[in-house]
Parts: sequence; C-alpha cells; structure tokens
Amino acid sequence: MPTYRLDLAYDGSGFHGYARQPGLRTVQGELEAALFRHTGEIPTFVAGRTDKGVHATEQVVSFTCEEIEPERVQRSINSQVAPSIAVHRIVAVDDDFHARFSATGRAYRYRIRNTEVHDPFGASTMWTYPHALDVGSMSAAMSPLIGEHDFAAFCRKAGDAPTTRRLDWAAWRRRDELVELSIGASSFCHQMVRSIVAVSVEVGRGRIEPEAVGEILAGKDRAAAKGAAPPHGLTLVAVAYGESLPRPGWVPETT
Amino acid sequence: MPTYRLDLAYDGSGFHGYARQPGLRTVQGELEAALFRHTGEIPTFVAGRTDKGVHATEQVVSFTCEEIEPERVQRSINSQVAPSIAVHRIVAVDDDFHARFSATGRAYRYRIRNTEVHDPFGASTMWTYPHALDVGSMSAAMSPLIGEHDFAAFCRKAGDAPTTRRLDWAAWRRRDELVELSIGASSFCHQMVRSIVAVSVEVGRGRIEPEAVGEILAGKDRAAAKGAAPPHGLTLVAVAYGESLPRPGWVPETT
Repeated sequence: MPTYRLDLAYDGSGFHGYARQPGLRTVQGELEAALFRHTGEIPTFVAGRTDKGVHATEQVVSFTCEEIEPERVQRSINSQVAPSIAVHRIVAVDDDFHARFSATGRAYRYRIRNTEVHDPFGASTMWTYPHALDVGSMSAAMSPLIGEHDFAAFCRKAGDAPTTRRLDWAAWRRRDELVELSIGASSFCHQMVRSIVAVSVEVGRGRIEPEAVGEILAGKDRAAAKGAAPPHGLTLVAVAYGESLPRPGWVPETT
Repeated sequence: MPTYRLDLAYDGSGFHGYARQPGLRTVQGELEAALFRHTGEIPTFVAGRTDKGVHATEQVVSFTCEEIEPERVQRSINSQVAPSIAVHRIVAVDDDFHARFSATGRAYRYRIRNTEVHDPFGASTMWTYPHALDVGSMSAAMSPLIGEHDFAAFCRKAGDAPTTRRLDWAAWRRRDELVELSIGASSFCHQMVRSIVAVSVEVGRGRIEPEAVGEILAGKDRAAAKGAAPPHGLTLVAVAYGESLPRPGWVPETT
C-alpha cells in the first residue's frame, strides 16, 4: 500500500491542540474525520503535536492506505475542514517516510505585539504584551542555547523522555510593535519554545541578565525557567526531512 | 461640553455590521455599551457605517459629553471590547468636528486570495477566489471610474439619496496569491466598493472587456453591475478630515 505525505496549515484558535482527544475539537480529529471518508480508519502520524491554541503554517502528516487520488481527496478534505484548516498538498512518498520520525528539523516563530492596545486582526496569533522590551538583550540571551544541550530547564517533564536537543538558531527581532522569535532545532520537547519565550521576556524587561540564561540551562531545573508564554503567539512554520531547515533571511548566520 | 474623536479598528467577522441593531451584536452596540459607562447615553457618529462582515483598521467616531479622561476611558473600553475591537486613541477636538460630516475622504482595500486553497489565517479577511484573474485588465478597467461621476450603477438604492461621488483613485495589484484593490473617494454609497470589485472580477476572468466598465457607469443601471463581492474581503483603511487621504505607495499617480 502506498504512503502519503499531507501538508497542512491551521489556525489553532478554536482547537484543543493537534492531538485527538475524546469529546474535544482537535485538528487531528477534524482532519481524520474528513480523510477517513476516503481511506477508512487508518493510523496517521504528525511532525509536531502542537498544544491547544498553537498554530501551524507548515505542518506535515503521513499515512499508509489503499491508493487514493491525491488531488480529489485534497479538495474533498478542504471542503470539509475550511476555514480553520487548509490542506496544501497530498503526495505519494517513499514507503519508509514517517512524518514524525523522518523529520530532521522543525522551525517555529513566536510573535509578541509589544503595545498596550491589542490588534483585532492579530489577537489570536500574537501575545499582546504592554511593557517595554529590549530586543537586543533578548537576542543576546539566546546564544548559550545554540548547539546540543540538555534542555531539561525548558521542558515540561514527560516521564523519563530525553530532553537533549540540537538548537540550530534562535533570534529575536523587532519590526515596529511586532517582536518576533525565530527558532529552529532538530526537535523540541514539550513547552520548550514557550519556556524560552518566557525567559526571553524576563530578560527583555530587565528582570534577569542575558547571561543568566546560560546558568538556567546548565542548572537543568524546570522551576528556574519560570513558566511558559501563552500558546497563541506560537506557530510551527517549517518541518525538514533531510534538507536544511529554512532559516529566515533576517536571522544572523552566527546565531 | 467638549467633543471627542475616537479612532478604532475592528475585525468585523463576528458582527452584524457597524450600526446598532436591536438584538444583534454590532460594533456600535459593543462600543457604546463600554463608552456609556463613562459618559451616560449620548449620540455617537461614525465616519463609515460598514456592512456585516466588513472590517476597519482606521474608523473614526465622534461624540460630545461631559469632560472625560481620554486615556483612562480608552483603557476601560479596550478591556471591555477586546479582542475584536481596539480603540487606538481618544482626543478632544473642535466643537464642530463630526466624524461623518467633517470627513473629506475615505479609503478602502479589498483583498482576494486568488488560489483554490484558502488560508486559515486570512479566511475571514480575504475572499478566496479560485479562478485565474488578469490583474492588468482589472486595473485598466478602473480608469473610467476616476473623477466625479454618478455611480448609480454601483450603488444599492437608498430612496432618493444622491449617488454622485468623487473617486480619487482605484487600482488593483497582485502580490503572489494576494490580489488587492486600493480605492479612495470623497465618500462611497452603499455597496459601491463591493460592486466595483464584482465587476472587476468579471473583467479579470475575461467575461467582460475593461472598456465595458465605462458603459456600465454611463448606463446608471444597477442591474448591469451584477451584484456585490462578499463583504469579508473589504476593510476601511483611512478617513481624512481636510488633509489628503493616504494613498498607498504602489498606486500609480495617474489613477
């Protein structure tokens, strides 16, 4: 039976996260309900299981089933899952392709609207944060995180799951009121990006020094990193399979 | 008593338009409910009464009341009307300022996402239109509309209300999948922009010639202009009071 790769985007606002949960509206639940009309009930796998409220512009799902007509199934799914979810394409791939285990990198962005007044058009995709943020310090604070480290201080505990990851880049920039993090890694453990954002904001407000971030990392103590930024500012923007992860042009080469 | 100008933005998706209607959720209804806590019940006036589903990034309201503390009232209103409405500022103005009657110009944009697949993040602010559109023809079709004309062919009848308007500019452009109209005028009659969009799309598909738009205008027959584009692609982006209306940099001087 052929294996298929399905690329999709979603506005996570109205969902209880990606992963199926009984009785709750989830991205996986809606997507599978539409897909299974064509394939019957089959296992599907996802590159990044996003939390409640988190968005994706480029998410990847894979599944194996009897042969389907990809374009027809794509149109059918889109007519069922619009407007919150959009399937960009479905293509047949190698039998050994697995959306989660074949993925070699993931990139996220986190957006803060750094003003007192929210933006009606971005309230569900940006964290409105009213206090002044020093974005230079926030970016400087990212440098100790680059490379391979045990990110236990930034990961919500999940039993004995390993917390070592390879962080390829992490950089903040400001464009007027928009303060944005771009971050790329082999993979991320649970709440890792939102924990990094929370610590970055503490640095940006001057409550902790940029240098302290290296100490928090080295301490491997979840309590030291102080919570997580709200989920709705977070978006999964890319997944790589062997090829290099697309790094935004504004991210310096050295980060 | 002082007169105040209040600038606001709103995502019109969840509203039955700007104007108050009994039993329905409207922008005016929500805004006044929040404002009247500070001013008591007073008349408020608006620059552009937008239809159900239409958005605004820059809308203007005026009212006259006992003296208020503008920044405190702004914060209070924002805490009540977030996230769909945002008040950008409240300032005291000349006694003869009237949001509607003092306005000398209004600018709108209309956004079409010209692809088969919708965008989950733009589905409520763009009209997803799957058929190929020739944007050069659409912009060419706008030229007979520029200047002062009787726009009866593009206006939904409202009794004997005059339908003569001065159109300052109207231009279409494409940026990848986004096809966008920028249009500025003294004022617009009801459904005028959406009727111009509907005719433009007929031109863009090659169903009518660009030259025919001048004939439709001259005919002053509402039936000839064939309906209106969906409201959710439309956004009020500027209102001018004496100063010139801000024209986007990409709009050619000659339109």
